Amino acid sequence: MPSALILIADGTEEMEFTITYDTLVRAGVSCTSAFVSNGNMQESIGSYEKNPPFAKGSRGINILPDTYFSPRAATPDKYDLLVIPGGAKGAETISGSSAVQHLVREYLEAGKLVGMICAGSLAALTSKVPKQPLTSHPSVRDQLKDGFEYSEEPVVVSGKLVTSRGPGTTFPFALTLVELLCGKEKRAEVAGPMVFPEGTFA
Amino acid sequence: MPSALILIADGTEEMEFTITYDTLVRAGVSCTSAFVSNGNMQESIGSYEKNPPFAKGSRGINILPDTYFSPRAATPDKYDLLVIPGGAKGAETISGSSAVQHLVREYLEAGKLVGMICAGSLAALTSKVPKQPLTSHPSVRDQLKDGFEYSEEPVVVSGKLVTSRGPGTTFPFALTLVELLCGKEKRAEVAGPMVFPEGTFA
Repeated sequence: MPSALILIADGTEEMEFTITYDTLVRAGVSCTSAFVSNGNMQESIGSYEKNPPFAKGSRGINILPDTYFSPRAATPDKYDLLVIPGGAKGAETISGSSAVQHLVREYLEAGKLVGMICAGSLAALTSKVPKQPLTSHPSVRDQLKDGFEYSEEPVVVSGKLVTSRGPGTTFPFALTLVELLCGKEKRAEVAGPMVFPEGTFA
Repeated sequence: MPSALILIADGTEEMEFTITYDTLVRAGVSCTSAFVSNGNMQESIGSYEKNPPFAKGSRGINILPDTYFSPRAATPDKYDLLVIPGGAKGAETISGSSAVQHLVREYLEAGKLVGMICAGSLAALTSKVPKQPLTSHPSVRDQLKDGFEYSEEPVVVSGKLVTSRGPGTTFPFALTLVELLCGKEKRAEVAGPMVFPEGTFA
């Protein structure tokens, strides 16, 4: 069974987080959400690892993560996919974490998938990912347009790096990740019962 | 500022809940999520009202509701909109609650909006809402097709009752609720930064 590690922080865009996690679970992907603190608590916590606080979403929905982010438990031998959702404040915390930056490089070097959406694409910049096709939320375009081949497509697949734009593109983003992990047939099988309006995403 | 009460239970479809809540918040709607227990604890709890347990979503995302569902605090003089999301088990709990059934009738009689999506539309049946146009997730169509003028449109607006089909129709469902509460301009203002792919939902 493929597996995914989905990062979450205070200020994460809760639709982007939830749509991605839920759609991957529907495809049979084993999902783990890990809370990235905006301090430097990762090194010292211990007991928090098993009992993380809830993440305060960007629009006020509080989500209980599955675990605390621990770099040792997040290595690319343990998961097939690493996901970084958006939400300005959450993406700032996640993309600013040197442990996450290191992990992004490790995943891509190991040939594992990395998904970034919305302001989450800033992690490609902070992780010093080589110049390649990429998209993001329009609000962070200016920070990314010189370091990458900036695209305005809803979903951009560049090798193992998959990027997308915002809440409104999260379904095609998640379904693209399903297709890359589980194949085209599984994508169609998952999309059916989600009842997309005709002509969208299916 | 318009206000919305969004019900949640164990087994609620977390995308339907989250997209609706988040999109309404983006429109400036004051949202309150209220946990409906699947027992008959509402009458006896007391302290739980201020500190509800988290709701276990249908695909394993745990969400901390804003409050415990209390019929006395949920009356139509307090909110402009009542929302019932889907997820088979969550919708069974919510639509099976006699307090919720009473509330649905009260909201519609008071001319307040009621939104139901996916299996949440079963609440129209259990609340004995008069025969009228309605849609739902295809999986519960057979239970609804005789009691209502069943439609397969993504979103059906019938007076104050707004129904929709599943995760894939939640964006147009939520944006329709925004339009009905806050007007067409606010809908466009909210949809823009959500970056929908061209030709979808905008």
